Amino acid sequence: MAALPAPLKRLVEQLSRLPGIGEKSATRLAFFVLRGEESYAQALAEAIVGLKREIRLCSVCLGFTENDPCSFCSDARRSGEVVCVVEDPADIMALERAGDYRGRYHVLHGTLAPLDGIGPDQLKIGELVNRIRGGDIREVIIATNPTVDGEATALYVAKVLKPLGIKVTRIAHGLPMGADVEFADGVTLSRAIEGRREM
Amino acid sequence: MAALPAPLKRLVEQLSRLPGIGEKSATRLAFFVLRGEESYAQALAEAIVGLKREIRLCSVCLGFTENDPCSFCSDARRSGEVVCVVEDPADIMALERAGDYRGRYHVLHGTLAPLDGIGPDQLKIGELVNRIRGGDIREVIIATNPTVDGEATALYVAKVLKPLGIKVTRIAHGLPMGADVEFADGVTLSRAIEGRREM
Repeated sequence: MAALPAPLKRLVEQLSRLPGIGEKSATRLAFFVLRGEESYAQALAEAIVGLKREIRLCSVCLGFTENDPCSFCSDARRSGEVVCVVEDPADIMALERAGDYRGRYHVLHGTLAPLDGIGPDQLKIGELVNRIRGGDIREVIIATNPTVDGEATALYVAKVLKPLGIKVTRIAHGLPMGADVEFADGVTLSRAIEGRREM
Repeated sequence: MAALPAPLKRLVEQLSRLPGIGEKSATRLAFFVLRGEESYAQALAEAIVGLKREIRLCSVCLGFTENDPCSFCSDARRSGEVVCVVEDPADIMALERAGDYRGRYHVLHGTLAPLDGIGPDQLKIGELVNRIRGGDIREVIIATNPTVDGEATALYVAKVLKPLGIKVTRIAHGLPMGADVEFADGVTLSRAIEGRREM
């Protein structure tokens, strides 16, 4: 790094802060930008700045959106009776890629993590309760990650929502498609057996 | 991708053009930028634009530099009698990381690739010949990659330089440090035996 000209070094430093990009990858990316067209560097820089300027949180589901309310919340073809609760806006994209779900979303923006000082007040749980009180939501599907924090958050959210008289469900846990029973971990296998369905 | 808000999609598209970054990684990086501080997005965008604005080619060695001539060409402690010829400015950084070489550099900006229409005129070979004619260079070390194109380029450059009455050498080929003879490919092993040295 010591040998890099200062502007190159600055870009390598900034790129190294991205997740999964070490100094070596960052150097490779910086050289690519440097060798590339001026127009590409401009387009990339504008896309980065534009992102922060143009994207905001949807006032309904709290996902990332350009227009408020977002395309999911304003889509009349989607059922307003089912809401899927996710940790993170990126989770919405994954569920949309799967393509089957035709209801609405709600983003918690995190999970409960008492050790990091993240309690229920830091998550968008109050907003979810207000949505349920104000609307015609019949079912909430909790799709937080099957991790310790995600499970704890799912349990907490379910406890808060049940008194509101709606159906609260959790996405299924079990073997992912294409997996091998032989190499599956014990917890996943236990969940798969626990959640077995009649054929 | 269809579900992404337009500004996010734009950044994912631009990031996907980087080498080794697919759509999935690009989406992850874009979400990281989106969730991060405004100041980070600004710093990253400025570093990208600044790079193209502030970096130019050194008029002597044709490497990337902020000031002309570059730090290598203007460093009086480096020997001006030895010049190491590399394909690419990034190769200089790798050699500097190794830390042993104390001579100057010359960047060809590519290799001969007749099928892609890259002949000797597209490379900075004429500039190298001029440097040798005008200065006190005694030895040229050719450090192009040990690939088909790199080898062909090394042979061509050597043929052009030899009539100038200087020493032309090629970096050694053989087993990389830490490698295993058992798993080395045949060409590398042949080169390693061919280039053996008395102990």
